Amino acid sequence: MKQSPADADWMAVAIALSQRGRPVSAPNPNVGCLIVNDGKIHGRGWTQAGGRPHAEAMALAAAGDAARGATVYASLEPCAHASPRGPCCTDALIGAGVARVVVAAQDPDPRTDGRGIARLRGAGIEVVTGVLPTEARAAMAPWWTRQTAARPYVTLKLATSLDGCIAMRDGSSRWVTGEHARAHGHLERARHQAILVGRGTLAVDDPKLDVRLPGLEARSPKRLLLTRGIAPPGWSAVGSPEAIDGIDSVLVEGGAGAASAFLAADRVDRLLLYRAPILIGGGKPALGDIGLTGLADAHGRWRLADSRLLGSDRLDVYERVREG
Amino acid sequence: MKQSPADADWMAVAIALSQRGRPVSAPNPNVGCLIVNDGKIHGRGWTQAGGRPHAEAMALAAAGDAARGATVYASLEPCAHASPRGPCCTDALIGAGVARVVVAAQDPDPRTDGRGIARLRGAGIEVVTGVLPTEARAAMAPWWTRQTAARPYVTLKLATSLDGCIAMRDGSSRWVTGEHARAHGHLERARHQAILVGRGTLAVDDPKLDVRLPGLEARSPKRLLLTRGIAPPGWSAVGSPEAIDGIDSVLVEGGAGAASAFLAADRVDRLLLYRAPILIGGGKPALGDIGLTGLADAHGRWRLADSRLLGSDRLDVYERVREG
Repeated sequence: MKQSPADADWMAVAIALSQRGRPVSAPNPNVGCLIVNDGKIHGRGWTQAGGRPHAEAMALAAAGDAARGATVYASLEPCAHASPRGPCCTDALIGAGVARVVVAAQDPDPRTDGRGIARLRGAGIEVVTGVLPTEARAAMAPWWTRQTAARPYVTLKLATSLDGCIAMRDGSSRWVTGEHARAHGHLERARHQAILVGRGTLAVDDPKLDVRLPGLEARSPKRLLLTRGIAPPGWSAVGSPEAIDGIDSVLVEGGAGAASAFLAADRVDRLLLYRAPILIGGGKPALGDIGLTGLADAHGRWRLADSRLLGSDRLDVYERVREG
Repeated sequence: MKQSPADADWMAVAIALSQRGRPVSAPNPNVGCLIVNDGKIHGRGWTQAGGRPHAEAMALAAAGDAARGATVYASLEPCAHASPRGPCCTDALIGAGVARVVVAAQDPDPRTDGRGIARLRGAGIEVVTGVLPTEARAAMAPWWTRQTAARPYVTLKLATSLDGCIAMRDGSSRWVTGEHARAHGHLERARHQAILVGRGTLAVDDPKLDVRLPGLEARSPKRLLLTRGIAPPGWSAVGSPEAIDGIDSVLVEGGAGAASAFLAADRVDRLLLYRAPILIGGGKPALGDIGLTGLADAHGRWRLADSRLLGSDRLDVYERVREG
């Protein structure tokens, strides 16, 4: 018999599957699930649009009888609370006769929060916990952030020249970055529930903020305007970075005022920095005052999470380092 | 008999050796030379401090009798002009009885410019030319630029935050980048004949501009001040980016005014961009006006030549794309 890959390898696949539910699984977490029997994958699942079916239900349906005696990899603890929208996953797993369940992250939802694991164990199923929990939480960062901190997960996008300008002094910004970087920006839009701009950007650019990628047009997110006033039709007004409610993920697209407001409020979790190999000189800076009082305070806040070339532009992705 | 590496592989070694002469070989080109016989390296040479001995002379001295019948790899065509400072390398190679000479770049010095190759061939030596010429020229870019364009090769160093600031609004700049990036900056100083700053930087920072690396303290370059006035003791005044004379390589270290003046004059050949993972917001921009009239003109001028992490900072090296 061939040696099977380690649990962490299978779990990495389940976590990759979980990404498919972003952002459409809301209000449910985007979970990924893999059913393995005899070293082979028999079922793959991820939370579907609107939150149902759950990842485990989808994977069980695919596995059929092969679920009996199988090992199930779930990026989040299977739910233990009954819902009018469907049966809970722990019962479904017990009913299918699985032998072993490997869980990445325990569900912080107080309705489950360990009860799923306990119920599986009570049914005689071996449960292994804590396999790639950090990676699993990162893959569902928007849901996790809202669930545990009651605020949305915010990504700030900046597209600048090498000297940090987002436009020429006269406001010209077409184009700073190239087509590959702009397409990547559209993909990021499709992964967010909402996009936010400031009033200046709305007035100058009249941005559509839609997703212009073949097949993903329907993914165009909700449009938020940072303003103390009222928003035009098709837009929702947001009075401050702290005032966003009922949304897991927000992409802040500009301009400098909105970006600075979110940074000053420490409400940015992830930074997308697209940088074109051009120099502008004396152009519009990416940011205004963000409340920094000393250079020492600026350090240790951002960790490089990804870096890649997009055509001749570079994308650096930074994540906010938060304690605890 | 083992198959010997291709000429390009040996030449790459000779070119790597040539880097050792930067910047101390001035006023001579920093040439690298390798002597190979029977698949083994018998001599390695690079132009020594002050320009003598030449790379070929050093390699021949190391090879001794093994030079007879050997192949010589030279990153620049061996010199053909007699000098009061020593014999010419073509005569030395002929005298040593080498069988074959592989040359990367033809010498643009009108005193040689093909005559070295012709004389070697006239003596019955096989000569192969054009092996990695672009790489060889890049390795001696300072000398080559001054030789062919009568101006120095200029590197501009910028150390910024992610939002393109070189300091906080109040001028604080200690520290933006970390110790690894700063050490790399000192290494770059050691590779330049001169360092230049503007008057503002001199007044505010009183920079020493010395090389603070163990063993390289003696490499501290000449100090230039961009000013229409007079320079203080220990400094040489330079009235404009076009007015630098008698120097192969200049490192422009700041501030924004000096950087912008060199960019506006299109006198920057290489850009060192050290970027710290911090956001400043509303700080001092890296550049002022550089004469850009439209975004389209900003594109196609800079090519990424190197990118690396230095601690938590990133260094991107860009080279100016020049036609011809």
